[in-house]
Amino acid sequence: MRNTARWAAALGLTAAAVCGPLTGSAVAAPASLYAPSALVLTTGHGDSATTVTPERAVTLSCAPTATGTHPAAAEACAELRGIGGDFTALKARADVHCTRLYDPVVVTVQGVWQGQRVAYERTFGNACAKDALGSSVFAF
Amino acid sequence: MRNTARWAAALGLTAAAVCGPLTGSAVAAPASLYAPSALVLTTGHGDSATTVTPERAVTLSCAPTATGTHPAAAEACAELRGIGGDFTALKARADVHCTRLYDPVVVTVQGVWQGQRVAYERTFGNACAKDALGSSVFAF
Repeated sequence: MRNTARWAAALGLTAAAVCGPLTGSAVAAPASLYAPSALVLTTGHGDSATTVTPERAVTLSCAPTATGTHPAAAEACAELRGIGGDFTALKARADVHCTRLYDPVVVTVQGVWQGQRVAYERTFGNACAKDALGSSVFAF
Repeated sequence: MRNTARWAAALGLTAAAVCGPLTGSAVAAPASLYAPSALVLTTGHGDSATTVTPERAVTLSCAPTATGTHPAAAEACAELRGIGGDFTALKARADVHCTRLYDPVVVTVQGVWQGQRVAYERTFGNACAKDALGSSVFAF
């Protein structure tokens, strides 16, 4: 019986040594349990992102929670979830009226939305037109 | 004297009206006081970012403070400051030895570093080689 007990103890330790690290890494990596959504948004004055110096740039992460240097991260994430991360689906608000003054502003979005790469760039005639798009995504 | 006092008061109000908004906007917009540093970093298995689905993606902002979903934001920002945001200057650590197993991993960095756009992509032969680069930037 003593030998059997020893063998059982040895087998238990072996099982712990083999399974322990696997369990540990699964617990330590919650980031792999959901598709990542991590973005950088920029704005700058000019008509093309390739020539414009970004004046503002904010981070926005929407999983597992809404965080980032974006000043309205929770609202921006909710808005993006509502359009499935499709920035081209953002609509200009009907209650905002802008002049036609041409003082172009370019916005860019890069990163990942629910595991898919995002590369978006859009030029507006002026800052008013930019601010009229959607409600919170480009309000930074 | 009364007229002089009135003029002085009127001038004072005018000065407040002209200077007030300027002071106000300078105080309300600390984001414009420093060049933004906001990045999205991704990793995925494969040999090119254009075909690889990003498995992990984290945000990293280094101004005014180190924040983001990067698990070691402060260390990563310090490391990037040390190389002036030049990702090509990251060196592989000498104390790490990797096999030559080919199981490629691609990392990407997009966004803005101190007001300048960043677009970096690098493919490693395997995850060990990726982890050996620098100390904390790609440790996510």
